[in-house]
Amino acid sequence: MSDKAINRIAVLTSGGDAPGMNAAIRSVVRASGHFGKHVYGIYRGYDGMIKGSIKRIERHEVGNIIHRGGTILKTARSYEFFTPEGRQRAYETLKAHNIDACIVIGGNGTYTAAMIFSEEFDIPMIGIPGTIDNDIFGTDFTIGFDTALNTAIDAVDKIRDTADSHNRVFFIEVMGRHTGHIALHTGIGSGATGILIPENNVSIEELVDQLRKGVKRGKLFSLVIVAEGNKNGGAAKIAESVAEHLPELESKVSIIGHLQRGGAPSCHDRVLASRLGASAVTALLDGKTNKSVGIINDEIVFTEFSDAISADKSPKKSLIEMTNILS
Amino acid sequence: MSDKAINRIAVLTSGGDAPGMNAAIRSVVRASGHFGKHVYGIYRGYDGMIKGSIKRIERHEVGNIIHRGGTILKTARSYEFFTPEGRQRAYETLKAHNIDACIVIGGNGTYTAAMIFSEEFDIPMIGIPGTIDNDIFGTDFTIGFDTALNTAIDAVDKIRDTADSHNRVFFIEVMGRHTGHIALHTGIGSGATGILIPENNVSIEELVDQLRKGVKRGKLFSLVIVAEGNKNGGAAKIAESVAEHLPELESKVSIIGHLQRGGAPSCHDRVLASRLGASAVTALLDGKTNKSVGIINDEIVFTEFSDAISADKSPKKSLIEMTNILS
Amino acid sequence: MSDKAINRIAVLTSGGDAPGMNAAIRSVVRASGHFGKHVYGIYRGYDGMIKGSIKRIERHEVGNIIHRGGTILKTARSYEFFTPEGRQRAYETLKAHNIDACIVIGGNGTYTAAMIFSEEFDIPMIGIPGTIDNDIFGTDFTIGFDTALNTAIDAVDKIRDTADSHNRVFFIEVMGRHTGHIALHTGIGSGATGILIPENNVSIEELVDQLRKGVKRGKLFSLVIVAEGNKNGGAAKIAESVAEHLPELESKVSIIGHLQRGGAPSCHDRVLASRLGASAVTALLDGKTNKSVGIINDEIVFTEFSDAISADKSPKKSLIEMTNILS
Amino acid sequence: MSDKAINRIAVLTSGGDAPGMNAAIRSVVRASGHFGKHVYGIYRGYDGMIKGSIKRIERHEVGNIIHRGGTILKTARSYEFFTPEGRQRAYETLKAHNIDACIVIGGNGTYTAAMIFSEEFDIPMIGIPGTIDNDIFGTDFTIGFDTALNTAIDAVDKIRDTADSHNRVFFIEVMGRHTGHIALHTGIGSGATGILIPENNVSIEELVDQLRKGVKRGKLFSLVIVAEGNKNGGAAKIAESVAEHLPELESKVSIIGHLQRGGAPSCHDRVLASRLGASAVTALLDGKTNKSVGIINDEIVFTEFSDAISADKSPKKSLIEMTNILS
Repeated sequence: MSDKAINRIAVLTSGGDAPGMNAAIRSVVRASGHFGKHVYGIYRGYDGMIKGSIKRIERHEVGNIIHRGGTILKTARSYEFFTPEGRQRAYETLKAHNIDACIVIGGNGTYTAAMIFSEEFDIPMIGIPGTIDNDIFGTDFTIGFDTALNTAIDAVDKIRDTADSHNRVFFIEVMGRHTGHIALHTGIGSGATGILIPENNVSIEELVDQLRKGVKRGKLFSLVIVAEGNKNGGAAKIAESVAEHLPELESKVSIIGHLQRGGAPSCHDRVLASRLGASAVTALLDGKTNKSVGIINDEIVFTEFSDAISADKSPKKSLIEMTNILS
Repeated sequence: MSDKAINRIAVLTSGGDAPGMNAAIRSVVRASGHFGKHVYGIYRGYDGMIKGSIKRIERHEVGNIIHRGGTILKTARSYEFFTPEGRQRAYETLKAHNIDACIVIGGNGTYTAAMIFSEEFDIPMIGIPGTIDNDIFGTDFTIGFDTALNTAIDAVDKIRDTADSHNRVFFIEVMGRHTGHIALHTGIGSGATGILIPENNVSIEELVDQLRKGVKRGKLFSLVIVAEGNKNGGAAKIAESVAEHLPELESKVSIIGHLQRGGAPSCHDRVLASRLGASAVTALLDGKTNKSVGIINDEIVFTEFSDAISADKSPKKSLIEMTNILS
Repeated sequence: MSDKAINRIAVLTSGGDAPGMNAAIRSVVRASGHFGKHVYGIYRGYDGMIKGSIKRIERHEVGNIIHRGGTILKTARSYEFFTPEGRQRAYETLKAHNIDACIVIGGNGTYTAAMIFSEEFDIPMIGIPGTIDNDIFGTDFTIGFDTALNTAIDAVDKIRDTADSHNRVFFIEVMGRHTGHIALHTGIGSGATGILIPENNVSIEELVDQLRKGVKRGKLFSLVIVAEGNKNGGAAKIAESVAEHLPELESKVSIIGHLQRGGAPSCHDRVLASRLGASAVTALLDGKTNKSVGIINDEIVFTEFSDAISADKSPKKSLIEMTNILS
Repeated sequence: MSDKAINRIAVLTSGGDAPGMNAAIRSVVRASGHFGKHVYGIYRGYDGMIKGSIKRIERHEVGNIIHRGGTILKTARSYEFFTPEGRQRAYETLKAHNIDACIVIGGNGTYTAAMIFSEEFDIPMIGIPGTIDNDIFGTDFTIGFDTALNTAIDAVDKIRDTADSHNRVFFIEVMGRHTGHIALHTGIGSGATGILIPENNVSIEELVDQLRKGVKRGKLFSLVIVAEGNKNGGAAKIAESVAEHLPELESKVSIIGHLQRGGAPSCHDRVLASRLGASAVTALLDGKTNKSVGIINDEIVFTEFSDAISADKSPKKSLIEMTNILS
């Protein structure tokens, strides 16, 4: 595809929101403007693409959003887009607005939808990885991950004060249904005694053993960080299971929850989003399509949607192993 | 009691920890030193008083704690202290260390214990209201309340980002088993559509009505703040009840939890704690006993423990009513 | 003046911005709507009143601003408004838009302008005290003061880390050209060794003496908080003067600066702003004019503009004296 | 060198403090304990090595420091260590305490000292890059850089509120005497109109041009981020120079200053510090010496001190160029 074919670029955010999405939108708008292209915002993700919620975004409209959590384009999950009729309608919307290419910001679901769509229709699509879960292959970090870590660690720091004052064990649940990135980093960053993630298979018995060792060493309070998707259940269930073995421990449960998705993005996420947004635009103008843009080892790289979704993005083994040394 | 009788002052924190307790401890130590008195720290509240966990605190030991959450003296709930034998042992500990007077920092339970003890034994006691719940009579604010509000509001601000991005209703539960101070202020401060507290008796039907009105006015997302102790159950239960009436609303639940107890105290709480700590010391030296120190209308006041515990400290009616105008 | 005369209320922010101004604007809009009145926003303060920068604000437009620093109405200082011609033009703008009453949010300058204007023209005016300086009489707290304290204290906490690590003395300048409220509270809240404010007249010699005593007691690092308007000059000048007496001290200077004006308002400031905004509206509807609304001892009170500007609002003496005991 | 030779490892922090140093110290202590080695803390950097300020650190002593800014070992710059006599005394201290190896945490000065020392004496030395400046070669990030960015961006976000409210240009100075890493990332992350760093050579004329373009495009407020070491002088001087060309702009200056060094470390910095601390220990046990440990592309790498100090660690050109597209 030649450069001159692309004059109008649409951008949307889809799936769970992540801090930094606005910085990415801003970057798409600014970079497009720099190259003389127009940007159209699609509201509420693919649902808005189907329903025609789309309007031009001028550069001044993104003038004060780089620091804001959430997404000015709103986000949603669209079931209709996973039907051929839905996608057909979406295509017609794009055509009706003379959209030449799309940039989609989101996670796995967003990418899957974009992949299917771009196989069926001749609208070039570039994906920007925006999800707090960091579970997209083809980039060291997804937009929002770093901010979510800082939000989680800040919450754990506060809980630490009360755990310390009461000599308690706290079981703290952070987001991560399929991956343990958030829990692993939060666990290391908070000096947790135990970290339970889908990838490390720590059993209740092993956790009890770690807590016992801590008590023996004179540890007065302990933090256990669990990912939603670890095999032993949520934090409340784990606390109960542990209590059967260690009834003398005074324990409490805390579920950090949705606040992990919000807040002003960290500097890291803003810079990452800015780089990915601008690179998505130049990629489209260079004729790329059906690819996720990412940064690996500080270099911009492109990955097929299919690989971005399915290739392994597990935490480093050495990082998981290190937790045994430090706790 | 004459001033010269008091040379050694013990200080303890008890019950739930609250941000600013360390600032109060520091102030007690510094003010005592100013008047040439020695301070002894009792660890883990009344439990430590019984078990003799007590040691001298030098002024430099409190040199870098004013900004720290939690309590360097640790805290606990002591059941033994509510037995005559427990209190007798506690008294003997104090005598063994030549303690002339005690300052206790905590909430209702702490005060009740102090009241009973000071009726039985000739150790003057002054209480400093330290609890995030703001449910002690005889002071406009308890230490920790202001910080807990800022922690809660910061969490709600983050949830707001994701609520806004997804056009969702969030049911957010904050602390407050018997009083709605935290929920009321957090609700007003976050512009909540609904606020459910023990004191306002809002029913599910009324809440549904408020949410409906919001939708009618074009409100795209809503926040509902609930105190633990409101009559309709926790946030999860309320969300379910609302869903029966408004199944079309996309809703989520978040329980802020224990992080409300931690974190660096706000400036307000540090100044409050500093004033109350110093005033507790001068009160003891002035011969006061069995009283809670507080600040009302910017003046130091003293209240009998019995009144501090039992007199009405409900939120202002006008504040509750205002929420109908603003939401 | 009767209630029915007032149908259109204008609102503006003027002078230095303060966190919580947006919460006050929101409250004015919501309360006005509740009573069936329309609100018009005037942009850039009195300058916009002169130039006709005015437009209707709908209730949904203030739906997501309660947590935002700054002011959506922008602010400015207007020299033209202090001329009779300027005020005449301003009046004509209001008449042209059928404005029946005005609510002005700001500090001393804002109030002075409102007082002059309301003496010349028959537009009822109510002032809401919005300034980080807390120097308006007739209210315990001005909007923004509490947030500025937390911003300053958070900055000082960070500086404390590096002061502690290096065993240094830090001279930290906070805002306050005419009043020491911010410096006094920040100083108490950070456990400062010295606090220099316009109201306490501490000399360099006395400060040197305090620092010397600290060193003698083994204090390894010290913080000195100075208000811009203290009599000894800015933090840099004070640091130099101290160095002449104590050349062995390793010292650094930090000027917190304009960041004290920004940031998300604290819960306290949002609740305060919400109460004052709603009360300003009901005051206008009750026929009040030429008054500042405030909260004293948790009750809404009204003060003549002239008193609000000129009556003494110095920090409590006892608070200033306490710093000698605690440092 | 064989593993069994190393039984006692000393650790120190030197130069400017950086958030995450404590997390690194903790990791050194924990990893050493894991391998059955003892750790000795040296206080106040090389100065303490000379003067014998050294004592055993038990593992529980680092149990609650991972989240604290500053350094529990204190830090200082030692001129004496740059004399042969000073180093000889330092060596004797180490020998007197039977220290077998040293881990030094700091920046360029720290590394230079370690390099000289390890060339003269047979004490293996490993360096951990701890400096907010990110100017050490051989690691993608130095400990403290990420936190400093978030501190700076948070300050700029607050200033943004007031810049936006007043339609002002703010000239904001961040740390960086020799490198522009902090300013560049802060500038991109805050959407700055201009970024002046030692590496990009932007002149006043070019900056004026950028500001003019912004005004022409309707930009109402602008942020200019300058590194201390840019060629045009500090923020105040630049503001003056700009004012000569654009006298109509209302501008303000803010110097973020020392608060950039403090505060709780970000999750990223804690994880980085934990990994580097543990790797420094295993490196020593593996017989490595005179090397800096770093992480490049998520892998632990070792670099000669001489390279770590002198090899080019400038910001990526593409990152600098991108700022022209996005501002």
